[in-house]
Amino acid sequence: MIAVLKQGATKQQIENLCTWFKSQGLDVHISEGKFYTVMGLIGDTSKIDIDMLQDLEIIESVKRISEPFKSANRKFHPEDSVIGIGGLKIGGGNFQLIAGPCSVESPEQIMEIAEKVKASGASILRGGAFKPRTSPYDFQGLRAEGLELLLMAKEKTGMPIITEIMDANHLPLFEKVDIIQVGARNMQNFELLKELGKTKKPILLKRGLANNLKELLMSAEYIMAGGNNDVILCERGIRTFETYTRNTLDLSAIPMLRELTHLPIVVDPSHATGIARLVKPMAMAAAAAGADGIMIEVHNDPQHALCDGAQSLTPEQFEDVAERIGKILEVVKQ
Amino acid sequence: MIAVLKQGATKQQIENLCTWFKSQGLDVHISEGKFYTVMGLIGDTSKIDIDMLQDLEIIESVKRISEPFKSANRKFHPEDSVIGIGGLKIGGGNFQLIAGPCSVESPEQIMEIAEKVKASGASILRGGAFKPRTSPYDFQGLRAEGLELLLMAKEKTGMPIITEIMDANHLPLFEKVDIIQVGARNMQNFELLKELGKTKKPILLKRGLANNLKELLMSAEYIMAGGNNDVILCERGIRTFETYTRNTLDLSAIPMLRELTHLPIVVDPSHATGIARLVKPMAMAAAAAGADGIMIEVHNDPQHALCDGAQSLTPEQFEDVAERIGKILEVVKQ
Amino acid sequence: MIAVLKQGATKQQIENLCTWFKSQGLDVHISEGKFYTVMGLIGDTSKIDIDMLQDLEIIESVKRISEPFKSANRKFHPEDSVIGIGGLKIGGGNFQLIAGPCSVESPEQIMEIAEKVKASGASILRGGAFKPRTSPYDFQGLRAEGLELLLMAKEKTGMPIITEIMDANHLPLFEKVDIIQVGARNMQNFELLKELGKTKKPILLKRGLANNLKELLMSAEYIMAGGNNDVILCERGIRTFETYTRNTLDLSAIPMLRELTHLPIVVDPSHATGIARLVKPMAMAAAAAGADGIMIEVHNDPQHALCDGAQSLTPEQFEDVAERIGKILEVVKQ
Amino acid sequence: MIAVLKQGATKQQIENLCTWFKSQGLDVHISEGKFYTVMGLIGDTSKIDIDMLQDLEIIESVKRISEPFKSANRKFHPEDSVIGIGGLKIGGGNFQLIAGPCSVESPEQIMEIAEKVKASGASILRGGAFKPRTSPYDFQGLRAEGLELLLMAKEKTGMPIITEIMDANHLPLFEKVDIIQVGARNMQNFELLKELGKTKKPILLKRGLANNLKELLMSAEYIMAGGNNDVILCERGIRTFETYTRNTLDLSAIPMLRELTHLPIVVDPSHATGIARLVKPMAMAAAAAGADGIMIEVHNDPQHALCDGAQSLTPEQFEDVAERIGKILEVVKQ
Repeated sequence: MIAVLKQGATKQQIENLCTWFKSQGLDVHISEGKFYTVMGLIGDTSKIDIDMLQDLEIIESVKRISEPFKSANRKFHPEDSVIGIGGLKIGGGNFQLIAGPCSVESPEQIMEIAEKVKASGASILRGGAFKPRTSPYDFQGLRAEGLELLLMAKEKTGMPIITEIMDANHLPLFEKVDIIQVGARNMQNFELLKELGKTKKPILLKRGLANNLKELLMSAEYIMAGGNNDVILCERGIRTFETYTRNTLDLSAIPMLRELTHLPIVVDPSHATGIARLVKPMAMAAAAAGADGIMIEVHNDPQHALCDGAQSLTPEQFEDVAERIGKILEVVKQ
Repeated sequence: MIAVLKQGATKQQIENLCTWFKSQGLDVHISEGKFYTVMGLIGDTSKIDIDMLQDLEIIESVKRISEPFKSANRKFHPEDSVIGIGGLKIGGGNFQLIAGPCSVESPEQIMEIAEKVKASGASILRGGAFKPRTSPYDFQGLRAEGLELLLMAKEKTGMPIITEIMDANHLPLFEKVDIIQVGARNMQNFELLKELGKTKKPILLKRGLANNLKELLMSAEYIMAGGNNDVILCERGIRTFETYTRNTLDLSAIPMLRELTHLPIVVDPSHATGIARLVKPMAMAAAAAGADGIMIEVHNDPQHALCDGAQSLTPEQFEDVAERIGKILEVVKQ
Repeated sequence: MIAVLKQGATKQQIENLCTWFKSQGLDVHISEGKFYTVMGLIGDTSKIDIDMLQDLEIIESVKRISEPFKSANRKFHPEDSVIGIGGLKIGGGNFQLIAGPCSVESPEQIMEIAEKVKASGASILRGGAFKPRTSPYDFQGLRAEGLELLLMAKEKTGMPIITEIMDANHLPLFEKVDIIQVGARNMQNFELLKELGKTKKPILLKRGLANNLKELLMSAEYIMAGGNNDVILCERGIRTFETYTRNTLDLSAIPMLRELTHLPIVVDPSHATGIARLVKPMAMAAAAAGADGIMIEVHNDPQHALCDGAQSLTPEQFEDVAERIGKILEVVKQ
Repeated sequence: MIAVLKQGATKQQIENLCTWFKSQGLDVHISEGKFYTVMGLIGDTSKIDIDMLQDLEIIESVKRISEPFKSANRKFHPEDSVIGIGGLKIGGGNFQLIAGPCSVESPEQIMEIAEKVKASGASILRGGAFKPRTSPYDFQGLRAEGLELLLMAKEKTGMPIITEIMDANHLPLFEKVDIIQVGARNMQNFELLKELGKTKKPILLKRGLANNLKELLMSAEYIMAGGNNDVILCERGIRTFETYTRNTLDLSAIPMLRELTHLPIVVDPSHATGIARLVKPMAMAAAAAGADGIMIEVHNDPQHALCDGAQSLTPEQFEDVAERIGKILEVVKQ
């Protein structure tokens, strides 16, 4: 960490700051220039509060050289993390295809979709039970009942399941869930993250709509700081000025996160684009960019169901996408 | 609400959709053009899920004419809401000045600041006990202990207090708090909003960092839908590409919200800019733009305290700002 | 186009508006609701100034049903445009790989790179002569001299060339250039676009850093309205809150533009990411997402040259990328 | 400027870099840490191309301590610039109120508005002749003819005039114009800025829709580097995710720019909000935030003219705003 001091900083102020840095276990190197004094801080600076420093009157600016995330940082953990999910693995060359409906609606619906996506190559079943909605008047999901249906589909198909949590108080309901998903709007719900850090479950953490990768990794750090290292990162589109698509899928996040962290990276092209016709090319692109997993919404009857999503594929479309993803993964591995 | 149907929509599909709209209590007017068929939907459309509609295969696009928020909507509640806080009022011409430290640190600190800001014209005391921080390694506030100190300052000075909640499980601790604040990162923590809707306390709802005014009002709607109409909206800066300031204070939100809603509007220039030198001009500008309240961070000793914020004013600076705000309010009212 | 009128609109005002719409060659359908009157406008509305309408006192809101771009619109030109470049074609299934240095620096540099990228499968040579730089003190390119060197490389290798124009006054220098590039910062330099509309050259139009696809297509429309239909669209990354990458490459722009327009779509992963290590996965992803062309920066000696770009690949790296792009194109076409 | 080198940098590489920095007239201080080597560069670094440095293989990151703009920098020019306009002054405590129509439409229109705004306290007349429009089919202004009408109004009323330039080739038409405006979309049209740097006219430079203050100042630097120091900066709203207002007026830009630069700062609340009802509160807020000038659109007959802007005030509304601005300026100066 480098701290640049203002011209007017007095000797006493500089000394006080030095003393404080040393009390934090850091070595301090000072180089005095004509216009600025620069302090180089050597040691573990991840626990230094950069906002607090920037607020000091004598500080011109502060810059981290090492990243503020530690457990998630590839520098301190060069090998890819491989996370176990039921009998499956994700990360470190293990790719998983996740598929299922946006919302769990009925036993028939979830079972039909689960069986079809399994036959087409999906290895993990997704399905929303608790649904975060912008409007209190919109459908909020089947909630506990939806979870029950998902667990039934897990039992019957043998597929591990992933579903979203919205409140730590619901955790007892998630006991048999294989991956707990944290939605984009809860990426910085720090109290929830802390509670998930106390569980032993893999957590799929979605990137917030206007959050950058550093913030995503700091949120992963909240979970890991609690003792749970099984965090899967998920790129699901960010908010930009584009309006034709619901969000903008940031695929460069995949190779960039790959450098920064050892955690597995999953991409959700369905929510990102909000348009079924775009899911196929974007899923293929996500595979080409090196994702460890792709999560796709599939519905059994998009044409006729009133509540269905234009962002969902039919099982037939999903089969085509799954096959092409497989071929692209081969080109990536060559 | 207007739904534009695609060219290929069949008669049967159109009829099915009509039937469904009617089952939702809406009147449907159809005008068929050469290229498009347009459906006008008359009635209370606030409970129609627009995402669901847009997802239908036969829909080209859907547009709300009336806003999706209802309880917060000025159209259905033309008079300004006036919200009682202790013996004070906010909204409908009642202006309140809120001041206090970023974090509650000690009994001496909170008492000294409380007395000084009260003397300079502040009517409500702010102070953070639970602090949302991007990093799990940064100071998280004194939490329950900080709340105790705030309540002590309330008792001794007679000032109503406002402080932030981060988890609905903490609600019992907030029993004597006068205004519960929801932070920007929790603006779309819908489960928390629902719980706050069941309380009888005024809620100050901060706009999320990348949220627009419609989303802010929909989050207010979550609280109001639960039966709690005492929602105060707070503009605290949004994320933009500007980096010199921490965020960008959107003061046009004040007159725009004034048209859209009857709820009181408070501005927080301290968090928005992150720079103490900018708080004075922006607080004055907020008053000129018509805010119902302004919330300012004040610290007793910013120069020396290590944890202090460059975004905090000294009590002397606060006194100057408070006086000028008063004069600007007179120009606004003329 | 649909215009929603305010409740207070008088009969006379509505009639005046109707008369004006009819004078613009439009048919008007009126449906009166209890709260709103809705006007449906049938006919060619692309020449209606929507800002002007929205500004009218009696208008609540206006919404286009058909897009405001016409020449670029796939609805009126369902077949893919195929654009000739030297003896090559781009669009309609014809893919081209464009490569070359960021800036033309010397005869040796441009010749060495040109020969190497040609050997690895690049079909078009890129190279900057006029360089738009944020600072007036940064290197502005070799300008006219750089153009001469590019033309020499064209002659010696037989490769068509593409280079950026910054001012219409420089057009005489571009006479032998095969594709004229308009940079992101000039995407809405409307006077320049008008001049390029009078030329007969293919124009590669880069998307502005904070522009959406509709604005990109409206800028294409400026060129096409002047009589030049040979416009190639280029996605090169947009500005977001992410800072690890220079910009965020919006690959969903490819399938989305594919629906909206018949024009060819090229992707520039080098400028988008600003990091050489990210160019390979993003170029592969662009191919998987369906691009008609990919433009990649290649330098002969990135390690040692002081002015070289970390966003440039070595010829060896380029060869690997080119080969994988080829394999991915096969998976796309299957 | 501080350059942080990667761990793997060889002694030879570091030495080469040092030699190069010294050849650029800089002193180099090196401090070697366990994980990083940090180079402090002392001297005039404004001409160092930071992109080029960041691209070097051995560089981890580069950070400017001093700003890259020099002529516009308050550090090197502590006194406010005062710019003469006709017989008037702007900056350094001199406030000017600029008013007039969006577009010049007819002799009667421009004369009527000019006389009315002059009577209400406007000192400078604005009016668009060349109009940048997103669509080639929208009204492009009266162009040369509009300029003639503005000059006539200048002559008859004695008011200095300001109008927008879109192409350096039009400069001869602007000979008698008092302030040349560069629009938001041309803020980074560097070739135009260079040409304006050769003129002797005050230039009002509008901030681009997605540009930050550093980029605005770098564009001012382009003009000043050419020898023209009479640059007036203009905040006119930036693009955000808010859709109720056309753009988001960033008033914190005023006090922030005040620190960074000595140039005068003008605010345009009409274009920023796009809504006449918001112009009054935002103009008052701009005055409270410390603007050196405010530019407001006024139309003689907004209710009836078809092409009129909802962002324009009537002369009566303008008179009220002008009066309140005057009162707020008094509170600011106290």
